[in-house]
Amino acid sequence: MTAPFATLTEFRGLLAAQPGADAALRDAAAAHDLQLTKPPGALGRLEDLALWYRSWRGGPLAEITSPQVIVFAGNHGVAARGVSAFPAEVTAQMVMNFEHGGAAINQIARSVGAHLDVVALDLEAPTKDFTAGPAMDEAGLLAALTAGWNAVNPEADLLVVGEMGIGNTTSAAALACALVGGTADEWTGRGTGVDDAGLALKAQVVAEGVALHQEQGDGLETLRRLGGRELAGMVGAIAHARVLRIPVVLNGFICCAAALCLAKTNEGALDHAVAGHLSVEGGHARLLEALGKEPLLSLGLRLGEASGGALAIGVVKAALACHAGMATFAQAGVSEE
Amino acid sequence: MTAPFATLTEFRGLLAAQPGADAALRDAAAAHDLQLTKPPGALGRLEDLALWYRSWRGGPLAEITSPQVIVFAGNHGVAARGVSAFPAEVTAQMVMNFEHGGAAINQIARSVGAHLDVVALDLEAPTKDFTAGPAMDEAGLLAALTAGWNAVNPEADLLVVGEMGIGNTTSAAALACALVGGTADEWTGRGTGVDDAGLALKAQVVAEGVALHQEQGDGLETLRRLGGRELAGMVGAIAHARVLRIPVVLNGFICCAAALCLAKTNEGALDHAVAGHLSVEGGHARLLEALGKEPLLSLGLRLGEASGGALAIGVVKAALACHAGMATFAQAGVSEE
Repeated sequence: MTAPFATLTEFRGLLAAQPGADAALRDAAAAHDLQLTKPPGALGRLEDLALWYRSWRGGPLAEITSPQVIVFAGNHGVAARGVSAFPAEVTAQMVMNFEHGGAAINQIARSVGAHLDVVALDLEAPTKDFTAGPAMDEAGLLAALTAGWNAVNPEADLLVVGEMGIGNTTSAAALACALVGGTADEWTGRGTGVDDAGLALKAQVVAEGVALHQEQGDGLETLRRLGGRELAGMVGAIAHARVLRIPVVLNGFICCAAALCLAKTNEGALDHAVAGHLSVEGGHARLLEALGKEPLLSLGLRLGEASGGALAIGVVKAALACHAGMATFAQAGVSEE
Repeated sequence: MTAPFATLTEFRGLLAAQPGADAALRDAAAAHDLQLTKPPGALGRLEDLALWYRSWRGGPLAEITSPQVIVFAGNHGVAARGVSAFPAEVTAQMVMNFEHGGAAINQIARSVGAHLDVVALDLEAPTKDFTAGPAMDEAGLLAALTAGWNAVNPEADLLVVGEMGIGNTTSAAALACALVGGTADEWTGRGTGVDDAGLALKAQVVAEGVALHQEQGDGLETLRRLGGRELAGMVGAIAHARVLRIPVVLNGFICCAAALCLAKTNEGALDHAVAGHLSVEGGHARLLEALGKEPLLSLGLRLGEASGGALAIGVVKAALACHAGMATFAQAGVSEE
């Protein structure tokens, strides 16, 4: 598979020409929902999910059978500033763990019946420290976007993207601060678990990065300056899913910061995505609010690895199972109110 | 299988002698959790669930492979007062729908890999209208408790109980009001969807029932007076699961009202249970607070049928999949902080 863009300008052009949801498909799904053997609205958000999903996929009534989870991994120059509780070599070690099936996301993906792909992006060459200059040059950003684009399985019927990258909550906080506003303190959280001194240092690093790169272009340009390869990988994958009409479940803070770069480049670029969960990472609730997304789950997770988004696959699968599999009042001979 | 009680006194004796969680098993699970390749605490409530589950089950580290969902169905004399948006014959029609695989719970149970059992309890003979006298006599309550007890599969490794019964949110509201306190208005919700006039009538019916039966014995006696067969079935099943050391996931308002009868009969009788979800039915949030349970999911459901509890099976399965399947830092060669 070759990505249909060779430059950032071409990628921006693809975003501007993305397909939208199909209102007729949504109306048909809503009419079908009203015939199912339950009081109208009694399945709550499962009904909303089914209508949203059907507005993107169309086709015959069907369950979700081929969800894909992609975990992108990248290393961050800013990690050298001491912003994480874990050393930078953990990124590569965790990629090995993913490949050997030992991480949380391996168990969760298996548990919800999803296929897991892991895409490690130049781990041996961290991005540049964004407090000293842009994290990536244009070729670097383009390569990561392309890797993300190409990682999406066109046969998938639901996509969750997530990440692994020591230092990347710092990058995500800087992106959110630069693109939404507010102070570095408001966006900076404990990530994998830094102490109070680490948190203060991290907020300082975020503030430095935002000050250096403020108001420099659109979401993609901000991604280039303050982001990282695994964040760009998620952006490429989310954008490709849109073209393929594959609905997306977003993961936590870092995934949503990457998604924000898309939304700030092209309004409505996340209409095919729902928020899988609310992380306890500082700033995620605020970020979801900025994205206008209500999370499906809130289970106190702060792991990354697409873990919360993958858990939410179970909810979306159940929603479509009900929508596609339930009998109508007429079929079941059940009296309506 | 014969239930080990022949009288309500013997059932009360079993409740008083129920086994508790095993603190040593919980400590061992907590020690194991700390070795897994994730920052401590990063899986949030999934970690809590794994420790809770292990404190009841023990044995070798294992995933959940045989969850059971039981839907009890019963009819209510109080339905003749016009408290539901649906006619009483819908209970039997929905039981047929469950048996033919057409209801929401069929799809959700299949989606999370659970076995579904349906237990219809004397649908042709509704309980008595509780505004005129006790809903059940002692023999009737005992029969429903026994049916619930016997419905639990001893080979199950997780149990969700739920219900179907036109009029049973009225019964549940009366139980909650009688056992927790407050006004009938505070506990009465729209159920399957009554209008404003229906809601006012329903609250009036709840108030009449509570006034007639107030302060009459323990939780089981209140269940006999204001409950119904499907609520008693859930009580019997939850109690049997405790003896079998099978962890339980509670469903919505009606299930929790039944569970409340157990908790008010014997303190700690729900220690082996978690709350699967928060229903939008009026009073469920208040009822969960009274039970001291934090719901796992909040998806706007108000269907009954064990639907929200069954959805939560996916979360508990994922929690145990992580706990049992993840590599340790040493196994994976991942550096600790």
